[in-house]
Amino acid sequence: MKFCSACGQAVTQRIPEGDSRPRYVCDHCHTIHYQNPNIVAGVLPTWGSKVLLCRRAIEPRRGFWTLPAGFMENGETLEQAAGRETMEEACARLGPMNLYQLFDLPHINQVHVFFRAELADLEIAVGIESLEVRLFEQHEIPWSELAFRTVTRTLECYYRDRIEQHYPIGNEYLPPMNLSSPIT
Amino acid sequence: MKFCSACGQAVTQRIPEGDSRPRYVCDHCHTIHYQNPNIVAGVLPTWGSKVLLCRRAIEPRRGFWTLPAGFMENGETLEQAAGRETMEEACARLGPMNLYQLFDLPHINQVHVFFRAELADLEIAVGIESLEVRLFEQHEIPWSELAFRTVTRTLECYYRDRIEQHYPIGNEYLPPMNLSSPIT
Repeated sequence: MKFCSACGQAVTQRIPEGDSRPRYVCDHCHTIHYQNPNIVAGVLPTWGSKVLLCRRAIEPRRGFWTLPAGFMENGETLEQAAGRETMEEACARLGPMNLYQLFDLPHINQVHVFFRAELADLEIAVGIESLEVRLFEQHEIPWSELAFRTVTRTLECYYRDRIEQHYPIGNEYLPPMNLSSPIT
Repeated sequence: MKFCSACGQAVTQRIPEGDSRPRYVCDHCHTIHYQNPNIVAGVLPTWGSKVLLCRRAIEPRRGFWTLPAGFMENGETLEQAAGRETMEEACARLGPMNLYQLFDLPHINQVHVFFRAELADLEIAVGIESLEVRLFEQHEIPWSELAFRTVTRTLECYYRDRIEQHYPIGNEYLPPMNLSSPIT
């Protein structure tokens, strides 16, 4: 941020009076520009024993497999955001959704929220952001070709919890990766 | 938003190619400015049978009672944000935190996330954003003087769940209030 989005003048970065963190402040119109974490909402869609994954057609991680997920938009609920992403990426409709895993990724200013949901039907198709959409049995999951760590962790939790058919809601902190690994 | 925060030129609002929603777009430097929901993180702090509430010293809802809560900052986890707010508003430290209630407030582009936590000790004090900090037994809760609906709902869930000593994690949509009521 270099300029004030309210008046177009240059901003400076400093701690406003009564605050404790540096903010972008406009000394012309006195607007303080706060920057806050974003929410990524996603789903683990199931069909019986199978899980739906999408192969990404877009960067980052083009060609890798993901659960349907993306940035929550203004005006949406978490469920609506997760359902919309599933429609966009896999042209799929979902039955009732169950909150499942929350991930804190403070190094990239994101919170990822995943639901579990059974597909409403088998009418799935390749969405505009996907190269391929497929249902996987557990032994078929392409673990080394998953796009994001939160996808891997959600699947790990799911296969752990499925044994007992008990899916406790989790909130997990994911620290920065080693530089040797490309995924967030 | 009227001006591009990257280059200072005027922005226009339109649907970018490949998108489906209107965004603020800079036709000079081609930056697309996305606007996304914010997270409010809070805590229901307990001390045995008592609950800690803070009377707000700041607008909105100055003079009304709230659970410690506020906007999550970049670089924080949900727990860290909720703990920081508790320190700022009640100078209080918390024991282990348990995820409890998530609220969708799409009409104000917010998600509120509340934890439950026992206070670490009784060293509480009036923080800079509070007029008063107090522990309440259930029959003392000032229901008609609570600051926000998500505070009321979290307390309602807590007293419902405390009977069974079972606190399931909930995700609830809160629609816009009637215009007759001032609180979000």
